[in-house]
Amino acid sequence: MNRMSMINAFDPSTLEALDPSSRALIERRQRVLGPAYRLFYEDPLHLVRGDGVWLYDPQGQAYLDAYNNVASLGHAQPDVVRAIAEQSATLVTHTRYLHEGVLQLAERLLATLPSEMSHVMLTCTGSEANDLAYRLARTVTGNTGVIVTQLAYHGVTHSVAEFSPSLGQGVPLGAHVRVVPPPDAYRGETDVAGAFGRAVAAAAQDLQEAGHGLAMLIVDSIFSSDGVYADPAGFLAPAVAAARAAGGLYVADEVQPGFGRTGAAMWGFQRHQVIPDLVTMGKPMGNGYPVAALVAQAKHLERFGREARYFNTFGGNPVAAAAANAVLDVIERDALIQHAHRVGAHLITQLHDLAARHPAIGDVRGVGLFIGVDLVQDLSTRAPDRELATRLVNALRQRKILLSASGPGGNVLKIRPPLAFQIEHADLLITALDEILSSAP
Amino acid sequence: MNRMSMINAFDPSTLEALDPSSRALIERRQRVLGPAYRLFYEDPLHLVRGDGVWLYDPQGQAYLDAYNNVASLGHAQPDVVRAIAEQSATLVTHTRYLHEGVLQLAERLLATLPSEMSHVMLTCTGSEANDLAYRLARTVTGNTGVIVTQLAYHGVTHSVAEFSPSLGQGVPLGAHVRVVPPPDAYRGETDVAGAFGRAVAAAAQDLQEAGHGLAMLIVDSIFSSDGVYADPAGFLAPAVAAARAAGGLYVADEVQPGFGRTGAAMWGFQRHQVIPDLVTMGKPMGNGYPVAALVAQAKHLERFGREARYFNTFGGNPVAAAAANAVLDVIERDALIQHAHRVGAHLITQLHDLAARHPAIGDVRGVGLFIGVDLVQDLSTRAPDRELATRLVNALRQRKILLSASGPGGNVLKIRPPLAFQIEHADLLITALDEILSSAP
Repeated sequence: MNRMSMINAFDPSTLEALDPSSRALIERRQRVLGPAYRLFYEDPLHLVRGDGVWLYDPQGQAYLDAYNNVASLGHAQPDVVRAIAEQSATLVTHTRYLHEGVLQLAERLLATLPSEMSHVMLTCTGSEANDLAYRLARTVTGNTGVIVTQLAYHGVTHSVAEFSPSLGQGVPLGAHVRVVPPPDAYRGETDVAGAFGRAVAAAAQDLQEAGHGLAMLIVDSIFSSDGVYADPAGFLAPAVAAARAAGGLYVADEVQPGFGRTGAAMWGFQRHQVIPDLVTMGKPMGNGYPVAALVAQAKHLERFGREARYFNTFGGNPVAAAAANAVLDVIERDALIQHAHRVGAHLITQLHDLAARHPAIGDVRGVGLFIGVDLVQDLSTRAPDRELATRLVNALRQRKILLSASGPGGNVLKIRPPLAFQIEHADLLITALDEILSSAP
Repeated sequence: MNRMSMINAFDPSTLEALDPSSRALIERRQRVLGPAYRLFYEDPLHLVRGDGVWLYDPQGQAYLDAYNNVASLGHAQPDVVRAIAEQSATLVTHTRYLHEGVLQLAERLLATLPSEMSHVMLTCTGSEANDLAYRLARTVTGNTGVIVTQLAYHGVTHSVAEFSPSLGQGVPLGAHVRVVPPPDAYRGETDVAGAFGRAVAAAAQDLQEAGHGLAMLIVDSIFSSDGVYADPAGFLAPAVAAARAAGGLYVADEVQPGFGRTGAAMWGFQRHQVIPDLVTMGKPMGNGYPVAALVAQAKHLERFGREARYFNTFGGNPVAAAAANAVLDVIERDALIQHAHRVGAHLITQLHDLAARHPAIGDVRGVGLFIGVDLVQDLSTRAPDRELATRLVNALRQRKILLSASGPGGNVLKIRPPLAFQIEHADLLITALDEILSSAP
């Protein structure tokens, strides 16, 4: 298992090389935000405005955003901005009073999910949603064990950080946590689904023997931090079956693939023909407004609802509901799932074309507007080329195109733009990648 | 220890008695939000609009809000609404890019705190801030134990729920958690500060013997869910000293008393002349926008910053910062600390006057606009009168005045209005209380 430091992090020891204005801001950050904060890029970016797929620095220079899935519809999307402004001026209160907005939101979310999923609980962040999933899984199963993939990221609460290996060696995994390799069709076994299922079964067995038992298998079906794995569709099914056979729940963490990004369905797990016990969602849900949720099968809430209760002060407040309802409106009105499919397919085709000309590209994978480009030192050994990934990410930033990298080798370019991304934007990215790959290091 | 079910919760078995429109909304809630959600009041309130201290139902009837401290400046406060609308239309991104707003916010918060407090970390909720405090306290001390007061509420993540006894028996406390009685000058020992300090010392000793050691003592200095305890000012000092002597940190949970509400200072702990190791803040911070924070002494972040990192997707985003900066602007511009002091003092005087005429009022306590009215069956035995509190809360709701109750006996009226509350509003509340107390049950 490789749990390294953050990919694409600014190195503070190079502060002196930056322009005075960035340096001044970074010094203020160090002074008041402290040592646990990280910045992106060798030359960190100061942003002041966003519009669609474009972000702007104080000089008015435009950056093409091929990375941010929080403003998932596009930066400053006007329908969502209007919903937030209007509801903020009308009422912000909480779920211990009756309000239409949160009910509409819950009903609309449930309509996009398998009929087994029946109840929505609102939180503010994906971390809170995954934390609540863990509380529920413990209550339902009576077990405490968790299975995650090798470099999974599920959040930052104490409990969730204990099952988020991507946070690095400095954040110890819990004794009740087991990691399994992701379903990697490029470097893993040929039988991707079978191998993933067998790994989950073995981890569950190990948890059983250690006395923890299995509370849940939690999986981001696009494997964002593991290096982006999407195919073959269906590869989750044996692992889900293995988790259930061990008495655990299957939690679909939809923070990354959810809200239409895969271009195949509203939710990432749907490509894999599995029905989750719990679904969590976050980042794109309010296009920047802090809103997240957990959706559960009714049977999993019975005991928790009877013995405990759940209240999240800001969770599901009228503005959160208005923002999230507006996001659903826009996804539907603008047919963004179909759009993500169309633009993503174009991008993937173009990337395959690049790969045919640049042997540094070992693999192109993903679906819709969530794509990984696996950079290798050698096509036959498939050895990860982290250095090239770092060079590309920073060279693209100098050309005013934003993305980052992922995976245990830090060598997988992660392309995950706002859904407002068009064919013309894809072509800008492809041209820049082509030029940088063609130039000497 | 009395850990009962939620105070002032709607009883779903009485659904049939409600008007058809409320019933329909509640049935939708049960269907889509599920059994873990609770409503306030025997007759739950449907709210559609807020303005200052007033909340409105769909018929346009106005309710005087004497309870909600999230919209702490007042509902739909125009400066905050404008800040949220403008920044939402400009840019929402995260702290891995440079942005002025979060730095201004951190600098302004630090300026209100003792000079020992040097770094701000932004989260979305008070739960997340307290969860992060626990992660830090474990890292700094190497211990895991937590001391809280008997009916404390600190949040809903798995870790924080384990030290939030007010969630009730269905949410088990952790084996590493000890509870102590709050500093209760009405029913507790005469030497309030000494007794509280001795209880903390004994709990720390017990944690030591059990092998957990003490990571932190976490205290809401207004003891909101314990029943509201404010005096004598200074009563925290021996407990803080005892926690530190045992190797633990002192965490000031300012979610309830913070942002000027006590009328004595910006932060509740300041009345008690203690310097926290960590401060957490939440609810009122964005006047309804989900923003919260942890503030730490620099020395407590050294190891965590080196070994771990902290990133909260929505935490400290430009809109969160704009909302929180606007809140600070308004507190300062409108001198709300002084205002809370003035209106709170008037309210407390009037409540004492009521107490002189109504023997059901055993004690009036609190500071600024955070006040508890302790209802008793008998002035000499001081036996809590939960039934009367329930009757008062619901009778006030029928007279369109909103508050709730607190404490292990469920008998302490909790008065915690938006800071826009004026003398005239206080008088409306006093008149209504007087009339209800004078009427037959």
